[in-house]
Amino acid sequence: MNELQFIEFIRNQPFRGIDPEAMGDDCALIKLPNSDLVVTTDMLMDKVHFDTDTTSLELIARKAINVNLSDLAAAGATPHTILVSLALPNTWTTSSTLTFMKHLGSAAAVFDSKIIGGDTNVWNGPLVINIVAHGIAHWRGKMTRGGAQPGDVIFVTGSLGGSLTSGRHLNFTPRIIESKWLLNHFSVHAMMDLSDGISSDARRLATESNVDIVLNAEQIPIYSSCQGTTEDKLNQALCDGEDFELLFSMSPSAVDALVARWPWPTQLTPIGKVTSGDGKLWLQKSGIKELWTKVGYVHGSKT
Amino acid sequence: MNELQFIEFIRNQPFRGIDPEAMGDDCALIKLPNSDLVVTTDMLMDKVHFDTDTTSLELIARKAINVNLSDLAAAGATPHTILVSLALPNTWTTSSTLTFMKHLGSAAAVFDSKIIGGDTNVWNGPLVINIVAHGIAHWRGKMTRGGAQPGDVIFVTGSLGGSLTSGRHLNFTPRIIESKWLLNHFSVHAMMDLSDGISSDARRLATESNVDIVLNAEQIPIYSSCQGTTEDKLNQALCDGEDFELLFSMSPSAVDALVARWPWPTQLTPIGKVTSGDGKLWLQKSGIKELWTKVGYVHGSKT
Repeated sequence: MNELQFIEFIRNQPFRGIDPEAMGDDCALIKLPNSDLVVTTDMLMDKVHFDTDTTSLELIARKAINVNLSDLAAAGATPHTILVSLALPNTWTTSSTLTFMKHLGSAAAVFDSKIIGGDTNVWNGPLVINIVAHGIAHWRGKMTRGGAQPGDVIFVTGSLGGSLTSGRHLNFTPRIIESKWLLNHFSVHAMMDLSDGISSDARRLATESNVDIVLNAEQIPIYSSCQGTTEDKLNQALCDGEDFELLFSMSPSAVDALVARWPWPTQLTPIGKVTSGDGKLWLQKSGIKELWTKVGYVHGSKT
Repeated sequence: MNELQFIEFIRNQPFRGIDPEAMGDDCALIKLPNSDLVVTTDMLMDKVHFDTDTTSLELIARKAINVNLSDLAAAGATPHTILVSLALPNTWTTSSTLTFMKHLGSAAAVFDSKIIGGDTNVWNGPLVINIVAHGIAHWRGKMTRGGAQPGDVIFVTGSLGGSLTSGRHLNFTPRIIESKWLLNHFSVHAMMDLSDGISSDARRLATESNVDIVLNAEQIPIYSSCQGTTEDKLNQALCDGEDFELLFSMSPSAVDALVARWPWPTQLTPIGKVTSGDGKLWLQKSGIKELWTKVGYVHGSKT
C-alpha cells in the first residue's frame, strides 16, 4: 500500500479520531481559537516501552497516545490535535497497519483529540512510534514543575506501584478530566505526571521549584498489585514508575476545599509537603525524616 | 547522562537553535502572534534515510531538520518551533549526543526556528530521528497540493535528479525564502516540495487538484550530476527523488511578472502546464504528448 492508496483508504473509510480532510499535504493546519498551544512528544520503541510479542496492537496504540495525553494533563492543557510517525517492520501487513491506525484514532478520540497527520515508514527494524500531542493551554497558563512553594501540600491522584505486573502501564487513563477540573477551580502551584516513579519525579519537581519535598510514607497510596512486605510495597510504589498519575502542589489553605469538592472517582491523596530547600527529596516514616536517595525507572533523557 | 544532567547541561551551555527555557517540563508552550499554525513531521531511520556508517552527524542532523522545513516551505509557512525525538543506539557516547543536538539546533537556527522540546531515548537498535516543525501560516493561508487550475503554468525551483550521487539529498537548502517571497507577491494556486521525484509528486498534485499535468521534457532542469544519455538524465531528473525543490502552479497571466521579478539565485523554470483531467501526468517530448506512468522513489506512506 503506497501513500496515495493509504490516504485514499483513510478518506473513504474514516476512522474515529483521524481527520481525513487533513491528509494528503506536506503539512497539517491547526486553527486555534486565539489560544496558546501546549505541545509534547514521546517516542516509543518495541522491547523498550512495549513488546509486540506479548501485547496487542490496541494496547500499544493506546499507550502511545495516552503517555502524550498524560503529559498534556500534567500541563493542564486540553487535548487538541495529534501527529503520528511510524517506523513499521517490513513484516507488517496492510491489515496490521490499518488496525493499528484505527486504534490510535480511537485512543485520540476518547479525549476529543484527533490525528491530523504524520509520517509512515517501513524498514527492517522494530516498531517505532512517535506521537506529538497539541493541547490548548488553560487560561491559567501552562502548568510546570516549577512554582511549588514552601508550606504547600503535595497531592497525588490514583495509587502507585506495580504498573508492570498489573498491566496498568499499557492501560491507564490519562488524568485529563481531573487536571482540567483542578485548574478550573483551584490555583495549582506546580504539576507533573508520574512516568519514572515518584522517587525520581518528585525530586524533579523539587529541583525545578527550588524547594525540598517531604513525603509521608504512611500516606503513599499503594496499588493493589504491589507485593511482598510493607517495605517492599512502599518501594514499589515509590520506584516502579509508569503510574501516569498527577503529582501537584497547592496552598495548604485550599486543601480542605479541594478534598471536600473533589468530584471524581479517581483517588486523591495528600502525601507530603513542600519545605524551603534546594531540590532534595525526604521520606518521613514512623515520625523520622530521612533523605530519600533512591531513584525510579531510569531511561533516556526527556527534554 | 540522565534527564536532569542533560537538561542542566543544555541550560548551562545553550546551543544555537535550542531554547533552554523550554526544557524540563512535560510540555513546551508555543505562544503565537494570533496566527494559524502549520505542522509537519518526518521520521528518519538509519540505513533508510541516511547511513551513520558513511555520513557525518552534522549532515544527518541537517537533513532531519531540513526535510521538515522543506515541508513548511511547500505550505508557504514561516518556521517557528521544532520538537526532536530520538532513539539513540546504546553505543553512542554523551559527546556524540551533544554534538548531534548542537547540529540539530544549528540547522533549526538557519531559518530562525528553534528546538523547544522532544524526547530522547536509548536502545539497542539503529538511530531513529523524529522531527516536528511548526510554522506560522502565511496570510494567504496554507498552500496545498489542491488548487491547480486548467491553464495554469507549472514551475519548479532548482534543478532535478542525481541527489544521491551529488550528496545533495543530505545537504540541500529548504526553499523557505523563495516560498515566502512567492506568496508575498503572487497568488500561487498549488504548491508542494519534491521529495519522491517529480514523476510521483506532480501526479499527486494533479490528483489532489483533480486536473492533468503536462510536463515538457525539454524544459526539465537537469542537475549536473545526472549521468548517461540524454534520456538517462531525463529519467534521473524525473524519478530520482529527494530534490526538495518547490513545484507550484499559477495563472499564466502572472508568469511574465514572476520571471521578471524573481530576485533569487535559485533557478526558476516553467516546465509544463495544467489541463482539465483527473489526475494524470503527461510528458511532452519532441512535440509528442504521451502518458507518463513511471514513478519516483517509493517509500512508506506519508499521511
